[in-house]
Amino acid sequence: MAGGQTPREPGRRLVVLKGQTARAGVVWLVGAGPGDPDLLTVKALRLLQGADVVVHDRLTPQPILDLAGAGARLIDVGKRKSRHTLPQDGINQLLVGLAREGLKVVRLKGGDPFMFGRGGEELLALREAGIEAHVVPGVTAALAAAADAGAPLTHRGLAQAVTFVTGHAASGAEPDLDWTGLAKANHTVAIYMGLSTAPAIAARLIAAGRAPSTPVAVVESASLPDERRLLTTLAELGAAVAELDGPALLIVGEVASLADTGAQRQGNERDGDVSVGVR
Amino acid sequence: MAGGQTPREPGRRLVVLKGQTARAGVVWLVGAGPGDPDLLTVKALRLLQGADVVVHDRLTPQPILDLAGAGARLIDVGKRKSRHTLPQDGINQLLVGLAREGLKVVRLKGGDPFMFGRGGEELLALREAGIEAHVVPGVTAALAAAADAGAPLTHRGLAQAVTFVTGHAASGAEPDLDWTGLAKANHTVAIYMGLSTAPAIAARLIAAGRAPSTPVAVVESASLPDERRLLTTLAELGAAVAELDGPALLIVGEVASLADTGAQRQGNERDGDVSVGVR
Repeated sequence: MAGGQTPREPGRRLVVLKGQTARAGVVWLVGAGPGDPDLLTVKALRLLQGADVVVHDRLTPQPILDLAGAGARLIDVGKRKSRHTLPQDGINQLLVGLAREGLKVVRLKGGDPFMFGRGGEELLALREAGIEAHVVPGVTAALAAAADAGAPLTHRGLAQAVTFVTGHAASGAEPDLDWTGLAKANHTVAIYMGLSTAPAIAARLIAAGRAPSTPVAVVESASLPDERRLLTTLAELGAAVAELDGPALLIVGEVASLADTGAQRQGNERDGDVSVGVR
Repeated sequence: MAGGQTPREPGRRLVVLKGQTARAGVVWLVGAGPGDPDLLTVKALRLLQGADVVVHDRLTPQPILDLAGAGARLIDVGKRKSRHTLPQDGINQLLVGLAREGLKVVRLKGGDPFMFGRGGEELLALREAGIEAHVVPGVTAALAAAADAGAPLTHRGLAQAVTFVTGHAASGAEPDLDWTGLAKANHTVAIYMGLSTAPAIAARLIAAGRAPSTPVAVVESASLPDERRLLTTLAELGAAVAELDGPALLIVGEVASLADTGAQRQGNERDGDVSVGVR
């Protein structure tokens, strides 16, 4: 992985001894959004089209990868649950190595890089190695889920705050989660990757005092063609999600009562055939 | 405002008596992102380019409005603090009226429509009126602020959850905020519109038990050319923000210690001149 090459200062061109000019590499940590290619930012799209290398996870949808430039090398460092294809440290070193080769690297992260994406770890590794790095925010999954469900995360009189957690944390595998706070009414809790831990989450929230009748909107594969949504309550959550198996977002709170009950997606209807051109 | 016209069923074409075919109007509640036009989603850009009418707030940056199609009518319903140009109910009725005229309406909301954007209220009003409405999520300001500051909102060992609140709520003007929960270590609190209430927020968090030394990253005008950032602590927050006056995002928590101390933006460096083309 480019071992033995000298780290370059960010933003500098380096004259290599053999007389060639090598450009300094750069890594862009780019939020890919929830999955629908139309929910990429314009900036993410442009970077993708101009990248030398795209480093992505297993769940990155093919239509997004197809937007990379024809000459771009695609590297899948995807993780399956409990089966890491490449451990985080290996990904960090891969990014450093590619940048040291002078490449323009796009590290695609599902959703937003800094929201449960371990983007912070990658950024720190790049900084430590002296690699130029930038972060491009993306549409995080909870926002897409809320948009498609028609359930605002905050709403006057129903929720003035929203907390984002992961099902992993919510299941109690980590100690610090403040269940009493999360259990308060008028506070939305958006839970990422919460499907397998949904029964435990519901039990803990109820035990901490949240009403069993609190509505929960569940959005599976938010923004994708196979998106599925259902509306249930904390008391019924475990049973309700038993049939789901994709990546899902749970929106717990009074706002979920505003969700559209229709089974069809509403957020991503065809919006016409106007083509997009930027500069 | 199209008073007296009959509500149309969503998605239907309606044959008007005079023999003309009127298309049914539709309203898109579209997240405009934090302000940088490059942080619009591809979908938002396409809708903007194809809209008959764009209804926007005062703070929507001109470069974003410039992306609307040449024939589009722009309506500013912007609000100043304590001086509503058009009250929310007026905005709701405006959207309904425009849709009843058969127009394709884009309602641009700063950041994401469902995160402190009152998008829920507009969606409910449209639903009640039988207007076809869709929501397009956007990059909410806290994600842009975190990206530019280089401070992840969640980070292994530092924060496994993040709560989004507004300065208004955080100042105690509303009753339900759970200060004890927000004051817990290893939990990031992202505060929107928190500049004027920063001293009160700091005092409340410290009173509820959060360490006065807790780092705080402040990002003013995130993603815009005049973005300013500073890094301080809860104890120093009030004094530190005294010189700022733009819209600002406060990131409170241990993750803020990871913020880049450089004064320059890092999130939005030039990314080359590759032009964007979709389909």
